[in-house]
Parts: sequence; structure tokens; C-alpha cells
Amino acid sequence: MIRIAVLGAGRIGRIHAANAAANPRCRLVAVADVLAEAAARLAKSTGCEAASDPAATLARTDVDAVVIGTPTDTHVALLLEAARRGKSVLCEKPVDLDIRKVEEAASEAARLGAKVMVAFNRRFDPGMAAVHRAIGEGAIGTVRQVVISSRDPAPPPLSYIPSSGGIFRDMTIHDFDMARWLLGEEPREISATASTLVDPAIGTAGDFDTLMVTMRTASGRQCHINNCRQAAYGYDQRIEVFGSGGMLLNDNLRPSTLRRYDAHATEIREPLLNFFLERYAEAYRLELDAFLAAIEGGTEMPLTIEDGRRALMLADAALESARSGRVVTV
Amino acid sequence: MIRIAVLGAGRIGRIHAANAAANPRCRLVAVADVLAEAAARLAKSTGCEAASDPAATLARTDVDAVVIGTPTDTHVALLLEAARRGKSVLCEKPVDLDIRKVEEAASEAARLGAKVMVAFNRRFDPGMAAVHRAIGEGAIGTVRQVVISSRDPAPPPLSYIPSSGGIFRDMTIHDFDMARWLLGEEPREISATASTLVDPAIGTAGDFDTLMVTMRTASGRQCHINNCRQAAYGYDQRIEVFGSGGMLLNDNLRPSTLRRYDAHATEIREPLLNFFLERYAEAYRLELDAFLAAIEGGTEMPLTIEDGRRALMLADAALESARSGRVVTV
Amino acid sequence: MIRIAVLGAGRIGRIHAANAAANPRCRLVAVADVLAEAAARLAKSTGCEAASDPAATLARTDVDAVVIGTPTDTHVALLLEAARRGKSVLCEKPVDLDIRKVEEAASEAARLGAKVMVAFNRRFDPGMAAVHRAIGEGAIGTVRQVVISSRDPAPPPLSYIPSSGGIFRDMTIHDFDMARWLLGEEPREISATASTLVDPAIGTAGDFDTLMVTMRTASGRQCHINNCRQAAYGYDQRIEVFGSGGMLLNDNLRPSTLRRYDAHATEIREPLLNFFLERYAEAYRLELDAFLAAIEGGTEMPLTIEDGRRALMLADAALESARSGRVVTV
Amino acid sequence: MIRIAVLGAGRIGRIHAANAAANPRCRLVAVADVLAEAAARLAKSTGCEAASDPAATLARTDVDAVVIGTPTDTHVALLLEAARRGKSVLCEKPVDLDIRKVEEAASEAARLGAKVMVAFNRRFDPGMAAVHRAIGEGAIGTVRQVVISSRDPAPPPLSYIPSSGGIFRDMTIHDFDMARWLLGEEPREISATASTLVDPAIGTAGDFDTLMVTMRTASGRQCHINNCRQAAYGYDQRIEVFGSGGMLLNDNLRPSTLRRYDAHATEIREPLLNFFLERYAEAYRLELDAFLAAIEGGTEMPLTIEDGRRALMLADAALESARSGRVVTV
Repeated sequence: MIRIAVLGAGRIGRIHAANAAANPRCRLVAVADVLAEAAARLAKSTGCEAASDPAATLARTDVDAVVIGTPTDTHVALLLEAARRGKSVLCEKPVDLDIRKVEEAASEAARLGAKVMVAFNRRFDPGMAAVHRAIGEGAIGTVRQVVISSRDPAPPPLSYIPSSGGIFRDMTIHDFDMARWLLGEEPREISATASTLVDPAIGTAGDFDTLMVTMRTASGRQCHINNCRQAAYGYDQRIEVFGSGGMLLNDNLRPSTLRRYDAHATEIREPLLNFFLERYAEAYRLELDAFLAAIEGGTEMPLTIEDGRRALMLADAALESARSGRVVTV
Repeated sequence: MIRIAVLGAGRIGRIHAANAAANPRCRLVAVADVLAEAAARLAKSTGCEAASDPAATLARTDVDAVVIGTPTDTHVALLLEAARRGKSVLCEKPVDLDIRKVEEAASEAARLGAKVMVAFNRRFDPGMAAVHRAIGEGAIGTVRQVVISSRDPAPPPLSYIPSSGGIFRDMTIHDFDMARWLLGEEPREISATASTLVDPAIGTAGDFDTLMVTMRTASGRQCHINNCRQAAYGYDQRIEVFGSGGMLLNDNLRPSTLRRYDAHATEIREPLLNFFLERYAEAYRLELDAFLAAIEGGTEMPLTIEDGRRALMLADAALESARSGRVVTV
Repeated sequence: MIRIAVLGAGRIGRIHAANAAANPRCRLVAVADVLAEAAARLAKSTGCEAASDPAATLARTDVDAVVIGTPTDTHVALLLEAARRGKSVLCEKPVDLDIRKVEEAASEAARLGAKVMVAFNRRFDPGMAAVHRAIGEGAIGTVRQVVISSRDPAPPPLSYIPSSGGIFRDMTIHDFDMARWLLGEEPREISATASTLVDPAIGTAGDFDTLMVTMRTASGRQCHINNCRQAAYGYDQRIEVFGSGGMLLNDNLRPSTLRRYDAHATEIREPLLNFFLERYAEAYRLELDAFLAAIEGGTEMPLTIEDGRRALMLADAALESARSGRVVTV
Repeated sequence: MIRIAVLGAGRIGRIHAANAAANPRCRLVAVADVLAEAAARLAKSTGCEAASDPAATLARTDVDAVVIGTPTDTHVALLLEAARRGKSVLCEKPVDLDIRKVEEAASEAARLGAKVMVAFNRRFDPGMAAVHRAIGEGAIGTVRQVVISSRDPAPPPLSYIPSSGGIFRDMTIHDFDMARWLLGEEPREISATASTLVDPAIGTAGDFDTLMVTMRTASGRQCHINNCRQAAYGYDQRIEVFGSGGMLLNDNLRPSTLRRYDAHATEIREPLLNFFLERYAEAYRLELDAFLAAIEGGTEMPLTIEDGRRALMLADAALESARSGRVVTV
């Protein structure tokens, strides 16, 4: 049984720790966070040890694999330390906000023969996976266009903006990964337009809150992404893939299938699931399971640092396009 | 070109006259109503002659076919007079509220070799017709169960109740026809329960406003019907047919496909189309066209007095069951 | 923390044991089954002790509560033994197939002041619960009609039929509980028709496979239930509640929201979730949690033997009606 | 009653003539086409006079208004001739493929005080109109993003490509009009990418068949359009408008609401309505009616040459962007 530790006891660390505690493929050994109290609370609720030094936890010989859910600027150091000690790594996105550091991490990890998976959770969502599988089975022939709608229920705290890397690296990065995965080809040209329609303070902080991206692959396949930091109706996560033989749509999730009819309207449905923790709860479970299965089976990781690097490269290019008003070739 | 007259310039006569005026298979010659003013208004808007004596209109030699949309208690006399004069007849439902009179009309019409179609408009609704066609094409194998939901937006005026024949003969009669058509076998046993939940005055007038019917055919196929005289969300007309190989559902119609998302709910759709004139507008057009096509082609009428008689027989049996609390064999 | 044991290591026992092992409100102490091997397997996968004598497990002092998932004919004896020993009980449905034994169990349990919950899992399904909650909040005014569709993907093995108590007691019993819960009044009149349309061997075994039930409460509210032992398209579980102010619909669940468009059709969706273990997985989790919460809080059980008794009484009455062709008053 | 003539007896002329014949606000006087036979056929089926000289028809004193449905390169001359003669004009889109000619037509028509309406039929579609009305009523607050999907069931004959003006002027032009109408602000920046993924011969003919457009208004509102000349599942016409308070979606239309469930899939719906003549049949009726109502009421035309000019300007800019790979400011 794989012995696992979770680094980081924040929102994302708690998800991974709870999933690790419930997954029969692994045993959760420890959770570590520089905030000792957070680590202790999480360790208690998941029945494992608490530690306040993530790096020290990597030194434990009774740990085979780690999940890195610490702040972004600590990812690369922890990832490489884990790799040097021969641990398998599931690293939260983004690997880093600086693409050169991601490239260095990738080449060092490769040199070490490390097993590193980057955590683009959406690939493991049952609906997104069903779309991808259907494409692979030829359900819609050759892909022509991908349309991704991705809107958050509410913007993050303003204090988070400066360290976020900006909306393209923080939010759209998930959609860039989806785009690459569903297009079946790498985007070559990218163009973006971005506005501040939700909160002017976001603009003052140097970021955008509402954007559209267009990408095009070498063979001429096209992808549209729209993002907004705030949707009144909740966390909006829809995908459309149009091909020579048909179309696939993946819709949002709701708490139940309840529909209400009254004198004013019909088919009234409940609000969408609140945010990523609820919407992608199953995806997080399946993501960890895929990571563990790859370790068990000695197979390739389903997602690598290279996937992280490519998504970040698209984010950088989109930001450049939004600022310059030019189409950028990647 | 078939020369046609419409008898009755009320709500239903106006529908038929407008459809006749627009149908390229026929020429609308006259509309007749004992209320001369109503006839005149309708004649003007449809560009034909007005008459105040329906019976006299039947005597015209320049009329090949008639639509009977007069009050129910005049149907049989007009129908037989038309038949004697060799006119084809499209007669509104019910043929009569008294099944003996319907039987006499049927046998007299048969003796005369008359071409009489009874106007169960729902069979011509594109959705209902698509269900029936799919059954015929084997899309769901052998039919096992039919579930019919049929609710009006609002009850008729209380003054109409005494002459209506009661909810089973006035409202459910459409559903009995649908049931026979979709079951593919005649119901043999029928059981009904009926309440007054909308307006006690309906009960005082000797009628019900909310009911459920169960029927069973010789081979054991089953049908459920539910009716209510008032649905807050509008005219509810749904059908479900369940068979050995699958299921067919036919849903309500709305003015458009608009869906709205807001902070309180998602997929909010517009109210249903108001009532039968709007909901079945296309069915009325296609019904008249089928009548005219049968005349043109010299083929059997798609619906006969026998269909009217059988639906009425089921209505009578259901009423007997609701009153006696017993299952009735027909 | 509540210490719990699961009696029965069959299909339903495995669900409860897995949920108990994962629920933070309780600790799973043991699973017991007369088939020692089944108990051992389940104990291993859930990390608890195995036992081959359910009754002996009831004698353990380190067990506060038990889930009874053994064969139906053992329920009452185990339930009462547990009650005598002061354990809280979650008993699978039906309590017994013989209503007199259920009545005796109810009165003995009452005498003992026992805490017994009967496991009608559907009440805990998020969709069904959302319907019930919306009714309680007045979303549709006063309830007038309830329509329940409930069809299994495939009939049970023929060998199960004789011990099942028949389709009304085995399958419809869930719908009787739903009906009572959603109508908000007790049914007073019941009428049923039942056929053998799936497999004649089911008829030979003395049972039916396709049925319709109508019920009516004292105030005239109405309920329709349809059942079939086999639906080609899978496990069909839909509910409609119609009231003076609107309507609520609860639809089936699918693995994802994927919709496919191709040259032949549009909106093609995946098959329904396979059967009750998948469809009601969340309901089983929430059911156990509600049981544990009632123990923790010292509150009334959300479902009692009386609920089991009333559902069985309706099943008996429906069977009598189907056999006699009469409406039965309960 | 307005006396109307239809110029052009092709596909679009036939639609307008049939609608004029059925519209109670007008009397169809004549249809004119240089193909005398086509005019004769259409005149016969709509009960009016036939003419082979559209210009001569404009000289008739018993004609108050004309619909111009002739080939695009004749629009401007006929439009201005009609204007000089004081006729009201409903002119099919595009007014011309050359924006300078459109500008000249606009200023000449203005000088003449002519009543000219440009036929962007989609604005009159009940679903599109419901979206626009809901925005106006504040249902979704301030518009932030518009997403338009518009795909044809099959490409036009190759022979049509050279005279079509290219996909942006021929097909996307409808979406540019929708975008302007729904954004509530004029687009200022436009970027487009276009490929040939359907048929290489379209590329050889100098055109594209698959494209994406992004536009941005002065206040930062954004619009995405995707087009393809061929969708295996039919004529795809969807619109999404996202605002500060919610979202509006308008979906495709189907022949009926039939849904089918079988062993392989559920919710299988019929293919979409075939193409624009079927999909927008109601829009064409309402468009003509709006034109006639504006004449009757002496009010402003709901759509003017200026709308035609602005849509064409966006088409030209999009083409320039697709060719140059640059964002174009308009």
C-alpha cells in the first residue's frame, strides 16, 4: 500500500488529505504545513500525523509519495526535493508562475527520472472525461472547434491578485489544459482580449476579470475560451466540442435534478454547485486515484510537468496578446 | 378544389374557418351561425359568405364538405343532414353526450355511406404524431404502459359545467382517444377516482375537477390518465409510452427555447403556451388538411364516428367507476 | 463516537458497512453473517471484526447500534433482540412480509422504548429530499396529485420471486412510502391492476411484473404509481408532484451531463445509472448519517416501524385489489 | 391595405411572397423575376400577377411597398429606384458586397427620405427576440459577453462561392448583426481566425469554411462568434448572453419535443430543423409583419441600411483580420 503525505493544509490540501484517507490504494501518513495548527486540525480529522515542516516530511523513509498543495512559490523546491528522494509527486497547478523555473524543474525532474504528475483536476471530471473518451471513440469525427465557458461565482480577495500571476495564469490555465487535451493538437496562434467589468479594483491591481481567448492549431482547428471572475448564477463550467461528425456538450452540475413549474416560469432548476471544491469533488478523488494507479502499475503519469509548462506558455502568450492587441504565435 | 363551409362561428369555428381560408386544398365558401353577427364577423375576416342558418348552408350545392363546430347538442342532426346530402363531414368532439345517440348516428351514417371524421385534434399534433409513428416503427418494442398528463390552465365558467357532460366527457375524452391510439389495443377494464380540489362550486354543480383513470387492455397493457381543471403553470399536455424496448416522452410547448440563469435558479424557461388554441394550433391545421386529403384521395377518414363512440364509452365507464368506486368492464 | 455493527454481508450489508466505515460519526466494530466467508471478506475490506453469528454480535457490549441487512424473515427477531439489549436499530425494509408480525414488532419495540429506524432509503436521496423540502416550503401550494414512475432495469432471478413477497411488497413498497411522504396525507382508497408482460415465468411463480396503482386520501388527493420489473433503458426513478401553485419534477440520474449530437439525433444522453446501488449511493450514505444523527442528538428516528407497517398495509391492499378487481379501503 | 410586390422569385422571394399573401395587413399585387417562368409559378401559387421586369414593377402606381429578393448585385439599383418612386422597401441582406456602394445607397436613400428596412430576419425569431427583450428588461443586468454559435448543415454549391462575397459577408454577417443588437454597443476591435476544414475546394475558391471571431466594444464588452459551413447534426443556431446579473441561452428548434429512451442512450431527440427556411419560418413572417406595421404606423423602420452597413463593415474587418493575423480596429 502506497504511503502518502500531503504538504499544505489549506483548502486544496484538505481535499487531497481527505481523499487520501478514504482511498484504499494508499495510507495517509502525514500532513505538513508551516501553520502547525492547520496541520494538526487536518491530521486529526484524517487520522494521521501532523508536521510543521514540509521539507522534513519529504525526508521520511515511510513516505512513498507526496501531494504538494503548498503556496505556488514553494512548489518547485519541494517537487525537486521529493524527486531527489525518489518520491512520486502530485503537484498542484501551476508548477510555478515563471515559465523558466517550470522548464528548469522539468529538465531536472527528467534527469532524476522522477515521477511527477501535475494536478489539472478537470481531466478527471466524469463529464469532461466522457467528452474526451467520446472524441477518442470517433463519436464526432475530426475535431474542428472547441468552445470553453468557464466563469467563477465570485472574484478572489483583492489581496490574492498580486500573487496570483493574473487571471490567465491563475484561472484560464485550466482552460488552456482542457483546450490542448480536447483539440488533440497544440495551439500555434493565440489571441486574447481582456477587460475589467466586474471590479475596477482588479484593474487597479494590474489584472483583468473578463476575457476571451482564441487559439488555432497547425491544421486549422480552433478554440474559444471565455472567462469571467464573477457569474451571478454560480460556477459555470461548460465545454463544447464540434467535429466533422457531430458535437459534444458537457453541462454544469446541480445538487439535484429537481425542476419546478409555477405561474411565472417552468423548468426552474436549482443553482449550480457552488465552486470548484463542490463541482470537482469527484474529479479530485479520481485524480488522486489515477496518480496512485500510475505508481502501483509503474506506468506513465497521466499528466506531466510538460503539460504544466505548455498550459503556462499559453497563459503567457494570451497575456501578451491581451496587452499588445496582437495575435501571438507560440 | 374542395368547397367547404364551417358551421359555428365560436372559438372552435373560428380556428377551422381560418385554417380553411389558408389551406390550398379547399375554398372556404361560407360560415354559418345562428348568431348572425358572429357569422358576419368571421366571414369578413376569412373572406367568405356569412349565413345564419347552418341547416340551410348544408343545402347549398356549391358546398362539398362541412366542418361542424356548433354546440354539441346540434352535432348529430347536422351531421346526418350533411351525410344525407352527400357532404363530407368533419365533426367536432364529442359527437353527442348520449352514447345511444352516437350509436344511432354511427349506424345511420354507415347506412348512408357517409364520410365523417371526428375531430380529435391531438392525433395531428406533431409531437403526439411523432410518438405514434415511433411506436409504429418499433422504436420501443411492444407497448406496456401509457401515462397521460393533461391539465387545463383554468376551469371553464361554472355556467358551462351543466351542459359539458362533466369532466370525463368534456376533457378526459381527448385522453381516452390518445390512450386507445397509443395502446394499440382497446381498454377492457377501467377504474377512476375523482375529486373536487380546485373549486367546490364545481362539485356543487355535480362535477369533479381533479381525477385519475387507470385502464387495462385484454393483453394486460396499462394506461394512466391524470386530469385537473387548473394548473398554475398553464396548459399541461404530456405523454409517456413505455415499451419492451424503451420509452417515448412528449413534452409541453413554450413560446421559445429561452433559458434564463440568475442568482436564484437556472434553466428558468418561459410559461407554457396558453391553452388548446395556441398549443394545438398546428394540430388544427394538420387535422383539417388530413380531412381534405382523405376527401381528395377517396381514402378512409383517419378518425370515424366509431372513434368518437369508443372514447365516449370510456368516459361513461370512468364516470360510473368514479361514482361507484368499482372497476368497470367495457 | 457511536460503535456500530452491521448484520448481513450481502449486497445491502456491504453498502451499509462501507458507509459506516467512512462515516465520522461512528466506528464500525463488526460485521456478522451466517456465511462466515462473506463476513470475513467484508470485515477485511472495511477494517473491522468478522462474526458468523448475528445474534451473538447483538450481545456485545461494545456495540451501540446495529444495521440489520439480513434476510427478511430474520428481521423481526434480530430487531427485537437488539431492542431488548438497548441498541439502536436501522432495519432494512420490509420489516417483515407478514403485517401481523410487523404490528407485533412495533408494539414490542414501543414497549421497550426502542430506537428503531426503518430503511426507506429514497427519502434521503438529494432529489427526492429536494422535492419534499420544496413542498414543505410551499413552492407548489397544496398537493393535488403525485405521479411516481419506478421501473427496474431487469427482473430478479426467478428463484427470488417466491420469497420476495411479490412485487407489491418487494418493489412497490418503496413507492408506497414515497407516496405517503409526498401526499402529506394517508391514502384511504387504493386500486391496482397488474400484468405479466415481461416474463410469463413470473406469472407462473404467482407474481406480476407490470402494474399501476391509484390511491386517494381523505381530502381527495390522488397518487398514481407505475412499476415494471424491466426497463430496457435502465433504472427509472421519477417523481412528479402537482399542487395548487405549481409542479415539481425529479428526474433520473446519469453518469455525466454529456450530450451528443450527430446526423441522426440530438441531445443523446448516456444511459441511466445502473440500479439502486448506484442510483441511491448518496441516499444510503445520508440515510445512515440521519440514523447516527438521531442517536447522537437523542431525537426521534426520521422513519419508524410504523412507516414500515403503513407501507406494507398499502402493499397488501394493492395486491388484494389487483387480485379482486375491486377498490380497497384501508 | 398596403399593396405589395415581391421582386425575385427564388428561394427567398418565395418565402416573402407566401408570407405577403397570408398577411392581413397587405395585398400581394405582383411578383417579378427576370426568369418569367419562376415568376409565373410563384404568382400562381400566391394568387397574384406575374412580371418579368422587376424595374417595371416598381413603376406601378398600385404598388406601395416592395420586397427585394433579387440577386445581391441588383439590390442597390432596385432599392434606389423604389425609393425615388416613394415605395417602402424591405431589402434582403446584404445590401451590397461593396461597402462603398452601401454607403452611397444609404446617403441617397436618406436624401430621398426613403423608408428602407434591411432584412436581418433573425431579429424577429421568437427566441432571439425573447433574449433581446429579456436584456432590455434587465433580466441579466449589464451585458458582459455574447457567445454566438452559427453553423450551416451543408456548404453552398462551389459555384456560389465566388459571388457570395466570402463566408464573412455571406454567413457571418447575420451574426455580426446579432452581436451589435445584443451587445448594446458597437464593436471597436475585431479579430478573426479562419480555416478550411470542410472542403479544400472552398479554400481553392479563395474562401474559408470554419471560423472564429472575437469583438470588443469601447466599454470592454466581448463577443465570440463561431461559424462552420457544415454541421453533421444540422443547422445550429445558438446564442448566449452573459451579464452582471445572469445568463440567457437560446437553443435550436426541433420538429417536436419527442424524447426517446432505449438500451443505448436516453433523451434522444429529433434532428434540428433543416435550414434557415424552416428554422426561421416564423422569423420571416414576423419580419414582414414588422415592415408592414412600420409603414402602417408611419414609424421608423426597425432595421435600416445603416444596420446593413455596420454589419458589412464588421465582415470586411474580420476578413482583413483573418488574412493579416492582426486585430483590426473599426
